[in-house]
Amino acid sequence: MIGFVAQDPIFEVLASGTSLMSLRIGSTPRRYDREIGQWRDDDPMFLTVTCLRTLADNLQSCELQRGDPVIVTGKLRIREYVRDGQKRFSAQIEATTVGHDLSRGVARFQRAQRSAF
Amino acid sequence: MIGFVAQDPIFEVLASGTSLMSLRIGSTPRRYDREIGQWRDDDPMFLTVTCLRTLADNLQSCELQRGDPVIVTGKLRIREYVRDGQKRFSAQIEATTVGHDLSRGVARFQRAQRSAF
Amino acid sequence: MIGFVAQDPIFEVLASGTSLMSLRIGSTPRRYDREIGQWRDDDPMFLTVTCLRTLADNLQSCELQRGDPVIVTGKLRIREYVRDGQKRFSAQIEATTVGHDLSRGVARFQRAQRSAF
Amino acid sequence: MIGFVAQDPIFEVLASGTSLMSLRIGSTPRRYDREIGQWRDDDPMFLTVTCLRTLADNLQSCELQRGDPVIVTGKLRIREYVRDGQKRFSAQIEATTVGHDLSRGVARFQRAQRSAF
Repeated sequence: MIGFVAQDPIFEVLASGTSLMSLRIGSTPRRYDREIGQWRDDDPMFLTVTCLRTLADNLQSCELQRGDPVIVTGKLRIREYVRDGQKRFSAQIEATTVGHDLSRGVARFQRAQRSAF
Repeated sequence: MIGFVAQDPIFEVLASGTSLMSLRIGSTPRRYDREIGQWRDDDPMFLTVTCLRTLADNLQSCELQRGDPVIVTGKLRIREYVRDGQKRFSAQIEATTVGHDLSRGVARFQRAQRSAF
Repeated sequence: MIGFVAQDPIFEVLASGTSLMSLRIGSTPRRYDREIGQWRDDDPMFLTVTCLRTLADNLQSCELQRGDPVIVTGKLRIREYVRDGQKRFSAQIEATTVGHDLSRGVARFQRAQRSAF
Repeated sequence: MIGFVAQDPIFEVLASGTSLMSLRIGSTPRRYDREIGQWRDDDPMFLTVTCLRTLADNLQSCELQRGDPVIVTGKLRIREYVRDGQKRFSAQIEATTVGHDLSRGVARFQRAQRSAF
């Protein structure tokens, strides 16, 4: 998923000691409009992206900000539940990793010292 | 594709004025080994990744280096050709975008000034 | 997306003359459980899949049934809206195509006569 | 990967008793041509797809033929090797599953009796 950070990221450390960063990511799919014979931007869609452990720590050190363009890889999870007697959905991505979208800017990378490749 | 830069990147400006960066990317797929009942690293695979225009320019400014962990998105192109009377293959990705793999380190991002989001 | 038909498919012809088939597809992601050191089935997730035109007509002719295992390719669309003052989500796939999952059974294929490849 | 069967499938049973079906799949990517401002078909690309065990058996029972349109999901494996002193590549997909492309025709599905869903 290629998109942008839509809200200020939320970082927390769970009671278990696990770091968690929650990102709200917007993405604007492009759609072919048969009537005008051209591609155009579709409505943006928004997803919550959950980042755990080292990824969460690193993103916190990156000072990721609202508006930053990013690439997200991971697994989509869609859950359906009932609240107040009505069906509801939630959709989120459990991130494998995240990177800045370098088609939109520049970043200098520094490998984490504790990380073994 | 999640992997690492396997050779020093090659940047050039084509006669048409188009910037081109060629990356050699290695990736180590994981495979479930039925005999030992565990996941293990498979042989790494290597692909050439072609980056054009602004993406090439930005990657050049990022001082991307051999060993840097990256995320690549784009389209796979596999070509078959005959050389010396024998069938040959080449495989490359035409990159949509590239980002540092932030599960493996930290980067500060600066949006390109000319880029409109 | 690899899954199964979770409800009887709904086929309709819109006022514009466009065929539409709506499928409800369930899929059971597998997750690595760090505590027990094994992969296990996660909760199934359900998505609405929208099929248009020839694909809808062909699926109708296939007599697709609840329980049939299928492969779906297409684009995910997640929409957020407000109802009764509360944020709500819906998630659906706009299918490019659908096929029976032939790791789970057998099918004989007959090319549509009107279709040009 | 959405494509078509480019050669007659090859089915064999390995010495270990494992069924193996090898498919040669062609796929025609579409590319946006900036000069003419339109999408057009790119050169077709061809990949070998390896199907094992039940999937191979079922595909054999399906009487899959050259020209049949199919959907393939699985993992790409690219290997580089040296022959006659020259670097060579091979690319193949290890299929998770395969299905007929039902946007191009009709198929009736019959669940395998031995298969547990």
